Amino acid sequence: MLHQDTREALAGAIANIHEKGMAQGTGGNFSAVIGSQPTRLLMSPSGVDKGTVAPAALIEVDHAGRVVAGEGAASAETLLHLEIVAMTGAKAILHTHSVFGTLLSMHALKQEKLEFFGYEMLKGIEGVKTHETLVELPIVENSQDMRLLSQTVVQLLTQKPHLYAFLVAGHGLYVWGDSLFQARRHLEIFEFLLELTYRNLVLSSSVNAA
Amino acid sequence: MLHQDTREALAGAIANIHEKGMAQGTGGNFSAVIGSQPTRLLMSPSGVDKGTVAPAALIEVDHAGRVVAGEGAASAETLLHLEIVAMTGAKAILHTHSVFGTLLSMHALKQEKLEFFGYEMLKGIEGVKTHETLVELPIVENSQDMRLLSQTVVQLLTQKPHLYAFLVAGHGLYVWGDSLFQARRHLEIFEFLLELTYRNLVLSSSVNAA
Amino acid sequence: MLHQDTREALAGAIANIHEKGMAQGTGGNFSAVIGSQPTRLLMSPSGVDKGTVAPAALIEVDHAGRVVAGEGAASAETLLHLEIVAMTGAKAILHTHSVFGTLLSMHALKQEKLEFFGYEMLKGIEGVKTHETLVELPIVENSQDMRLLSQTVVQLLTQKPHLYAFLVAGHGLYVWGDSLFQARRHLEIFEFLLELTYRNLVLSSSVNAA
Amino acid sequence: MLHQDTREALAGAIANIHEKGMAQGTGGNFSAVIGSQPTRLLMSPSGVDKGTVAPAALIEVDHAGRVVAGEGAASAETLLHLEIVAMTGAKAILHTHSVFGTLLSMHALKQEKLEFFGYEMLKGIEGVKTHETLVELPIVENSQDMRLLSQTVVQLLTQKPHLYAFLVAGHGLYVWGDSLFQARRHLEIFEFLLELTYRNLVLSSSVNAA
Repeated sequence: MLHQDTREALAGAIANIHEKGMAQGTGGNFSAVIGSQPTRLLMSPSGVDKGTVAPAALIEVDHAGRVVAGEGAASAETLLHLEIVAMTGAKAILHTHSVFGTLLSMHALKQEKLEFFGYEMLKGIEGVKTHETLVELPIVENSQDMRLLSQTVVQLLTQKPHLYAFLVAGHGLYVWGDSLFQARRHLEIFEFLLELTYRNLVLSSSVNAA
Repeated sequence: MLHQDTREALAGAIANIHEKGMAQGTGGNFSAVIGSQPTRLLMSPSGVDKGTVAPAALIEVDHAGRVVAGEGAASAETLLHLEIVAMTGAKAILHTHSVFGTLLSMHALKQEKLEFFGYEMLKGIEGVKTHETLVELPIVENSQDMRLLSQTVVQLLTQKPHLYAFLVAGHGLYVWGDSLFQARRHLEIFEFLLELTYRNLVLSSSVNAA
Repeated sequence: MLHQDTREALAGAIANIHEKGMAQGTGGNFSAVIGSQPTRLLMSPSGVDKGTVAPAALIEVDHAGRVVAGEGAASAETLLHLEIVAMTGAKAILHTHSVFGTLLSMHALKQEKLEFFGYEMLKGIEGVKTHETLVELPIVENSQDMRLLSQTVVQLLTQKPHLYAFLVAGHGLYVWGDSLFQARRHLEIFEFLLELTYRNLVLSSSVNAA
Repeated sequence: MLHQDTREALAGAIANIHEKGMAQGTGGNFSAVIGSQPTRLLMSPSGVDKGTVAPAALIEVDHAGRVVAGEGAASAETLLHLEIVAMTGAKAILHTHSVFGTLLSMHALKQEKLEFFGYEMLKGIEGVKTHETLVELPIVENSQDMRLLSQTVVQLLTQKPHLYAFLVAGHGLYVWGDSLFQARRHLEIFEFLLELTYRNLVLSSSVNAA
């Protein structure tokens, strides 16, 4: 894909995600790999309304997280994007702040993960061939110390190199893919599963109580 | 309806269904009959973002599920579409993956069906003349073996030839009609009833527990 | 307002209501008074997708419910619209099928009404000056016999001539106003109160149970 | 920002807020400061559908709440806007009527506040540097006596000068910022936190009951 096409596609993805309410209050950050050795990312700038990011407003950051093209600051979480790219070969990373993701990441924090099983929708995750697959969504503790959070993520991805997503507790979802298309597909799958899980929990516990 | 009009109408229906969040992560598949003896279906291609299917991107498949026009692969579930057409005379089939459909298909799986009674909205289903009609929505078990799933559906439609919809457990809703217009009407009715049933269950069990 | 403006305004209102999911499956019907002595109504035709009603597709019906201009059939519920106009002087009537309205009309059917108190939003209802007003939303039983349903509504409006809305059980909301603008305002208020009431019931009973 | 730009930006914000269902039934009011010493506000007119406020339809009010430019009446709540500007130096104030805000303002009225802790989203509030911050959203009693409500708000802002938002019980959210951009950011944050809190309460109490 040409860089200009990637700009259009990433800006379109961000606008769509914002419209669904998953990047409110300038929250969330989004990247696509546009160069390797060394890595170069096309990225949403920090602190802007994610409903108004035009293709030309996307910034470029280098392998050390420095802005090398475009106007605006890189998010402090750029480090996480770079680690995920380095560890998994991801070509695009989407980080959302949805209500269901935030809520369940706190609710299930003690178990350190959510698990999904038995849903046809799981087959939208790369490599999953049947609904009878147990898919794990790890939850890591949040931190304002990006080195610490980054280490936690490196440790997680070292243990589980085939992940495509994890939750940061009280914070949101990181999801990626071998292409921007796949990352968006994974995002739709995981956010669907999060809403489904929440509604299941409410129904199951109501029914048990009754 | 001319084929070009059917293309426009089916593509419009798919875009609308995707926008409502009922075909996330490339999920769902959608067809309209454009030829009979032998059957020919206009159909959404497999593995594409259902928010971006242009009229020209729809494929044509023959009575054996082979792609005979257009670019892209047919969904493995094309077999189910063909069986439903053969058994019911359906002219259009819509298969969605909604949160409420997925959730309730698991919740009520042991009963093998959901039942709806007393709602005016039921009159939107072809043949229903009063809200005091008991409408059944059968639930069949999911399988990755399309021949098996297909047999289950043939068996169901043999027993109950006047159905317009069923759920596949953990998977989603199949709904059809004598026209694309009727299939869309039935889809809106059943998805409405699914949301209503979920919210009723949550409320009723909360109230009973209190 | 000129008839052409009324057509545009009513068609716009219908499209907006459909988009909010309150007139799924061709459900709901909508009218505006365009003549008096005898009454003439501009009205949505029956059995059409309420997301596609152009201004020119609206029909005109006379005081006996007969279509006098335009193509398409009048809804069987036209009788109710005419009775409401006759009894209250309403200039526009909106009848929706929302999930929350359908659900609560069944849940509270034994009490024959819902009551709202303490909400600033109540001041959007004509004549309400303070949030400390008890607003009643009566619930009447549904019937496929339009004469019977019509009699029930006449009886209700005779007893309570200052109503602007009622629910038909398992069916939906009727709401009106002294203008189309006011009817839309009332619709937004009552549908807001229905969602609020549902969520309150779920929360209150969960909390009591815990 | 030029006045014309402020008009466009405020009208855009109002349309967006209405579309999200947070200003139904002509509810809510919205202002931006366009002059100081004495204060002059650009403001939404009272009693109009908040989905249709064009830039040119915004009115200008002076420090005493009198309309000095434009057509239409000022909301009775203009007094509150002026007090908030005087006490906090706010440059824009957004007052919404959301379902979650209305509901929780009643539910938590006895505690006189909601508290949020542990969410990354909190960092979208000006001055908050970590998710481990306790953010308070005070709740004041509603009143139709604007002088009384105004006094309550003055008292609140005297005690807590660093607030960016409060709830009026059964009524809605007031939120502001040092710019319209910041006020919109704060609105998205607080409405997100309100939905999150509601869903958390429902889940937690269901689970405890089970």
